[in-house]
Amino acid sequence: MAKLWQKENQTTDAKIEKFTIGNDPVYDLQLARYDVLGSLAHITMLEKVGLLGADELGPLCAELKAIYAQIEAGDFTIEDGMEDVHSQIEYLLTQKLGDQGKKIHAGRSRNDQVLVDLKLFMRAEIQHIADAVERLFDLLIAKSEAHKNDLLPGYTHLQIAMPSSFGLWFGAYAESLVEDIELLEAAFRLANKNPLGSGAGYGSSFPLDRKYTTELLGFESPHVNVVNAQLSRGKTELYVLTAIAQIATTLSKLAMDVCLYNSQNFGFIELPSSLTTGSSIMPHKKNPDVAELLRGKANKLKALPNQLQLLTSNLPSGYHREFQLTKELLMPAIEEILDGLEITHYMVSHLKVKKDLLVDSKYDLLFSVEEVNKLVVQGVPFREAYQIVGKKIEDGAFDGSTREINHSHLGSIGNLGLAEIQDQKEIAWKRFGFEKVNKAIAALIS
Amino acid sequence: MAKLWQKENQTTDAKIEKFTIGNDPVYDLQLARYDVLGSLAHITMLEKVGLLGADELGPLCAELKAIYAQIEAGDFTIEDGMEDVHSQIEYLLTQKLGDQGKKIHAGRSRNDQVLVDLKLFMRAEIQHIADAVERLFDLLIAKSEAHKNDLLPGYTHLQIAMPSSFGLWFGAYAESLVEDIELLEAAFRLANKNPLGSGAGYGSSFPLDRKYTTELLGFESPHVNVVNAQLSRGKTELYVLTAIAQIATTLSKLAMDVCLYNSQNFGFIELPSSLTTGSSIMPHKKNPDVAELLRGKANKLKALPNQLQLLTSNLPSGYHREFQLTKELLMPAIEEILDGLEITHYMVSHLKVKKDLLVDSKYDLLFSVEEVNKLVVQGVPFREAYQIVGKKIEDGAFDGSTREINHSHLGSIGNLGLAEIQDQKEIAWKRFGFEKVNKAIAALIS
Amino acid sequence: MAKLWQKENQTTDAKIEKFTIGNDPVYDLQLARYDVLGSLAHITMLEKVGLLGADELGPLCAELKAIYAQIEAGDFTIEDGMEDVHSQIEYLLTQKLGDQGKKIHAGRSRNDQVLVDLKLFMRAEIQHIADAVERLFDLLIAKSEAHKNDLLPGYTHLQIAMPSSFGLWFGAYAESLVEDIELLEAAFRLANKNPLGSGAGYGSSFPLDRKYTTELLGFESPHVNVVNAQLSRGKTELYVLTAIAQIATTLSKLAMDVCLYNSQNFGFIELPSSLTTGSSIMPHKKNPDVAELLRGKANKLKALPNQLQLLTSNLPSGYHREFQLTKELLMPAIEEILDGLEITHYMVSHLKVKKDLLVDSKYDLLFSVEEVNKLVVQGVPFREAYQIVGKKIEDGAFDGSTREINHSHLGSIGNLGLAEIQDQKEIAWKRFGFEKVNKAIAALIS
Amino acid sequence: MAKLWQKENQTTDAKIEKFTIGNDPVYDLQLARYDVLGSLAHITMLEKVGLLGADELGPLCAELKAIYAQIEAGDFTIEDGMEDVHSQIEYLLTQKLGDQGKKIHAGRSRNDQVLVDLKLFMRAEIQHIADAVERLFDLLIAKSEAHKNDLLPGYTHLQIAMPSSFGLWFGAYAESLVEDIELLEAAFRLANKNPLGSGAGYGSSFPLDRKYTTELLGFESPHVNVVNAQLSRGKTELYVLTAIAQIATTLSKLAMDVCLYNSQNFGFIELPSSLTTGSSIMPHKKNPDVAELLRGKANKLKALPNQLQLLTSNLPSGYHREFQLTKELLMPAIEEILDGLEITHYMVSHLKVKKDLLVDSKYDLLFSVEEVNKLVVQGVPFREAYQIVGKKIEDGAFDGSTREINHSHLGSIGNLGLAEIQDQKEIAWKRFGFEKVNKAIAALIS
Repeated sequence: MAKLWQKENQTTDAKIEKFTIGNDPVYDLQLARYDVLGSLAHITMLEKVGLLGADELGPLCAELKAIYAQIEAGDFTIEDGMEDVHSQIEYLLTQKLGDQGKKIHAGRSRNDQVLVDLKLFMRAEIQHIADAVERLFDLLIAKSEAHKNDLLPGYTHLQIAMPSSFGLWFGAYAESLVEDIELLEAAFRLANKNPLGSGAGYGSSFPLDRKYTTELLGFESPHVNVVNAQLSRGKTELYVLTAIAQIATTLSKLAMDVCLYNSQNFGFIELPSSLTTGSSIMPHKKNPDVAELLRGKANKLKALPNQLQLLTSNLPSGYHREFQLTKELLMPAIEEILDGLEITHYMVSHLKVKKDLLVDSKYDLLFSVEEVNKLVVQGVPFREAYQIVGKKIEDGAFDGSTREINHSHLGSIGNLGLAEIQDQKEIAWKRFGFEKVNKAIAALIS
Repeated sequence: MAKLWQKENQTTDAKIEKFTIGNDPVYDLQLARYDVLGSLAHITMLEKVGLLGADELGPLCAELKAIYAQIEAGDFTIEDGMEDVHSQIEYLLTQKLGDQGKKIHAGRSRNDQVLVDLKLFMRAEIQHIADAVERLFDLLIAKSEAHKNDLLPGYTHLQIAMPSSFGLWFGAYAESLVEDIELLEAAFRLANKNPLGSGAGYGSSFPLDRKYTTELLGFESPHVNVVNAQLSRGKTELYVLTAIAQIATTLSKLAMDVCLYNSQNFGFIELPSSLTTGSSIMPHKKNPDVAELLRGKANKLKALPNQLQLLTSNLPSGYHREFQLTKELLMPAIEEILDGLEITHYMVSHLKVKKDLLVDSKYDLLFSVEEVNKLVVQGVPFREAYQIVGKKIEDGAFDGSTREINHSHLGSIGNLGLAEIQDQKEIAWKRFGFEKVNKAIAALIS
Repeated sequence: MAKLWQKENQTTDAKIEKFTIGNDPVYDLQLARYDVLGSLAHITMLEKVGLLGADELGPLCAELKAIYAQIEAGDFTIEDGMEDVHSQIEYLLTQKLGDQGKKIHAGRSRNDQVLVDLKLFMRAEIQHIADAVERLFDLLIAKSEAHKNDLLPGYTHLQIAMPSSFGLWFGAYAESLVEDIELLEAAFRLANKNPLGSGAGYGSSFPLDRKYTTELLGFESPHVNVVNAQLSRGKTELYVLTAIAQIATTLSKLAMDVCLYNSQNFGFIELPSSLTTGSSIMPHKKNPDVAELLRGKANKLKALPNQLQLLTSNLPSGYHREFQLTKELLMPAIEEILDGLEITHYMVSHLKVKKDLLVDSKYDLLFSVEEVNKLVVQGVPFREAYQIVGKKIEDGAFDGSTREINHSHLGSIGNLGLAEIQDQKEIAWKRFGFEKVNKAIAALIS
Repeated sequence: MAKLWQKENQTTDAKIEKFTIGNDPVYDLQLARYDVLGSLAHITMLEKVGLLGADELGPLCAELKAIYAQIEAGDFTIEDGMEDVHSQIEYLLTQKLGDQGKKIHAGRSRNDQVLVDLKLFMRAEIQHIADAVERLFDLLIAKSEAHKNDLLPGYTHLQIAMPSSFGLWFGAYAESLVEDIELLEAAFRLANKNPLGSGAGYGSSFPLDRKYTTELLGFESPHVNVVNAQLSRGKTELYVLTAIAQIATTLSKLAMDVCLYNSQNFGFIELPSSLTTGSSIMPHKKNPDVAELLRGKANKLKALPNQLQLLTSNLPSGYHREFQLTKELLMPAIEEILDGLEITHYMVSHLKVKKDLLVDSKYDLLFSVEEVNKLVVQGVPFREAYQIVGKKIEDGAFDGSTREINHSHLGSIGNLGLAEIQDQKEIAWKRFGFEKVNKAIAALIS
């Protein structure tokens, strides 16, 4: 099948074809439903400004909605030899409606069409990620509450430091996820701008009503300047990858803790057999492969913002074909972070916390600060109290056997502040404004 | 001078000393004022919860404010052999107040002290960056308005595409900066959380009132969980560096455009001699060195988030000494982005836009889409109109001499949407909430 | 099918299974033939040291060679549910030979088995890459010779600088590839070390003859220290990716030149229609999509060494499961650089150089240095001659119309030094020592 | 002082000046001696080809050698307002010799002058790095020999795996350094090519004898093609940074091991007080700050190749001003890796290995493979033996108390292969050919 821009005298070599198209059809399939939505908004607007007859709009909308239903049902495919998803949909329309089908591209370029598809796609995927983060957050809060009395040695510099607890440990990762979400929200804001009408980056001589398509698609605002709308290609993907990398950073750290705590030399947790693997040579091994793979996959995700920067660095303004390659970074990354969040959820649910860890005399020194503080309360200046206890430890005269803890301030062992963390989470999630977006899309497709 | 944690029997080798301390004193100097603020809030709270006498609070506050004044006046230094800024300030206090000076560390660790200093420092520097971005934004908007009628060839794939204008070009970078600010705001939110009271990452057995210090220092909220507060070390710096890298990405692209547009083969702009440099061998050269260095320095900044990730990757939770090295990435980066914004401001102010660029017949083809659209308005379906004009061009029969442009929609050549962009900018800046923060600090130090 | 390390009471969840196995079967297929070679060497050695009967060796070798033939014929598959390629091969052996098949794992761990497979795989792929680089090198040399008289404006700072030629331009990339090969050779050296016998990283209590397997597999030497042999996991892949990234850097720069030279504003070359693509909206466009994709894909490859660093950073010594993920970076990268080299070959073959570019008066200034040099030859000190010509240019009195060039030194327009470059290339390729390696493998499998 | 390329009517703004010059004078100082060497070779060649009088050569050489002596003595400075080191040296010459001093630039551009300086600088620094690596290598070999009988638990997946030893551990890092040197050698080869005569990247119309300067400066060969010589700007630095990053990767891993082994939960080594630091709050702490900073600084170095890639990515061929910024990455990195190697040497010298670690019953399972192997030797197929021992462990019936080890093969606990590793090291170092280079330089300056 000839490409839309192909004139008669052109031929293409199969090798070049493979090199240029690559895995686009696979990725494009994920954009199909958003391409329909973009077209629906576009033609509704075209009719409003008089570039499409009222009689033409109805059948086009009906056919587009039929295609949407087909996509939802999993029955949509991009035929072999079809250049991309946009061509496939336009082809289906033309099959049904003849020349009318060809009219939907007026006032658009493939550039703004792809861009609007990508924005809608990212907007939706950000919701999926936020949902998965929320599920993990809820679990961590529940685990924190459940294990608030299970003490854990706290380390700094990998050295035994002060008493901690599983309540603190689980709670820390819960609060950390709330902060990660800030970057996801920044990505959402950039994804939530309407590039439609920017054409190939220089607009159109048609009197397009860009505020109307903005409203129809539930975007917060237009990308006003058409050159800037095209500058957002690659940039929006970068924001999403940055947010994904940040969530991955948290998962990776949690996984590292799990691997360490699971080492016999720490021995703070136990993993079920579903999360461990044996060795081909050592019959005693129960390796925490799942946590290690989680750590590794998360670390790989952390590299993606930089890879995108290398892809787009020093390109002058205006579209360049390699922007098409951002899909190869973006789409698998979304899938991987969703997998990672789910596996983390499973791991956190199933890891078993060991009890009474601090009774081991190895952990006596954890309580040295408590001793210092007791002296301070008795009126000894802090620096002196520190010297006194330090001397005792040097001389082997320190008795750390008391194991008494009185931490009571907000966020400490005795007062985990879970309600405060949940409040912060509520505020963060509300800022997205997912409902408004979802309502607009529902109205457009109904 | 002995370090606070040093016991009598320790010696340190000069080489190790240099390796461990590095450039810390230089960087620490930038933290001095924030260290004082943190201490003011901490002791005010200590008095409130009964860990410091009311009679002790007054003199300590007075001395701390005197040190603050000294810092502001540029008279503060970190003495040779002093371990860090915190030791220097405590040393000054002890000089004046004797043992009372030693009391300010009760209920704190150096870890949460450094962390609160860094948070306050970043919060303040984010304001400086936002201010500098605002100045550049205002200039770009003014330039866009001034050059709205100066046409420019628009390119995609580095190929002549469609008509653009300097109005569009300047305006695009203005809007782009507004989007960049979203990441700066995310960084601000993370910097605007109070780690004080988290100690070495495991809290304190003193009944600290963390909400009170949060209020005194104008933080939006506490980092609730103390383990998480320490997890924010490195993470907050990462957010700031990510935001800086994003602004740098925009400056780099603008600089690349300038270098290209300044090439004789494009010839769209002229640079003043202050922005160009000659060659040691070619007497005719006027090289755009400033724009190239801007591009290069900006590109170097883009690498920093990744460098920070490499620094902190796979470290288990809890403090590790290399977190100290984040200052070496953060502090110069702040200076460099501020320099870069200022130089960009100078460059944009002084570059001279060339007029009547499109009269050159080389640019005839820019108007091919206009011809297509004319046919569409006459009722020809878009795809057919495209084929007709394409055939004309192939046959050398295309007449692109008209140079007529009727772009009228939002964000296009004829309707730059500068008011809309400015509205978006106002909203973005308001979200920071700088006033609240500044008011709290003013109250604390007054 | 149960995994080798699986005991009776274990179950695995399908989701976890998918997460842990991932795409391993696909990647493992590429390792199959090397796994057979490794096993052949291992059992030949086992027999030599008395751990396998002479009567057992024959049938095992025969079956392994049969499997090898099957792999070569494309008939080998990894069955569903089989954990990895090693299990599949051992399973086939056991099917044929019963208990004897189980003996090939004595004195080995899956760790050193995978490692030897990867080393052999990388060693072979490095040869493929070197071959593809050689083909491109030969073409560039031929093009350089063919176009030695076709002048081209030379640029510095994107400003018109001094005369260049297509002979110089093609030749530069040829010589550049020879330098790139140095890193590929470093990778080859690291890949060409034998890890067999290192077991899980701590060796074996069997009296293995590691020098014998080294000889059988044609390795240059053993990885002597068994802990270090395991440290080479990830590291060898890093070396290969670094070499690939370097070749990609050269391809990316060449592609950038092509995109720029193909812009109408430069207009130095013409691309055939097979290398260009049209626009959906602009009927006049012939976009250099292939060169842009080449540039983008090459730039993506440049990010991989960093991604691998992020994956492995801060892992203590000893094997960790995420090392398995290096295959996901390595294997597609090899395919992509081979594709990239082939497409570049096609592009360089088919791009058409434009003639008589320098006649345009825009390029008068290219000859200013020639004028300076003429004065120098007449005895004027260089710095003065420079000032004289500079003044003429300022005053508009410079006459650059002569277009006379007398460059004669090595590596200049008039003396491209292609023979010298080819000599360097010969030396570089000889250093690999591919023949010795290939001879050993041929002997082992014959 | 006016710049060489400055004409009368130019002014420069102080801010721009600071932005463009940056820290160049500091970095340039490191290039001074190499600039003299390059000039010596250049003028010697100019005289040979008749572009300089025999009577002029003598005084110029004498003065240049005087300046070289001044540099060696630490008495050379770049005066305020002087653009760069080349200007300073030319200025000194002109002060002494008048117009003759101006003649040394004939047939050169600042571009090839800087490039030759950088190549000579990198060539020399690579020797320094190789020397420092050699010192550390020698120490590690000695430590490996000294501790060959001190057993250590070996880990995979951070799980107790099989017996290892400090002999193996130290030896592994020794061999690893030999492999790292391969990349340093690749960097040396690229640094060891002569760019002189390439001018601004397009050669010269003077009949320069580039093979003669190649010989005088001890380069292995010329960068033949002049365009390619300029392409090596940035690329040579990248090779050096890649080699530095690789050495840093090894140091970082060693430091991570030290931090872990020093944790009370492992407790395998003890660090002297000079390598540890206390806590401001916990009187019992002895934190391994030096090892942590080593790890962190090494990890930062690992990011530099990527940063250089971002700096130079997508720049078309020909010089661009930001190449000047590579010095800011290169020069501190060299200093830091040299520091890192020295500190590692100190750390390895001073860390104390703990004895009899394996007596702890926690390590019983380390010996499970020994039990499997015993059965294998008795004729049980490996897979069955594995099942038998595995069952015993499951049932709590495994007796791991024997602690008998019989590893004898090359590279194992009982046969560390230090002689083989040292042989590999000798071969690797010999390949550089430092002597030839040093002899040429000595002859040139004598």
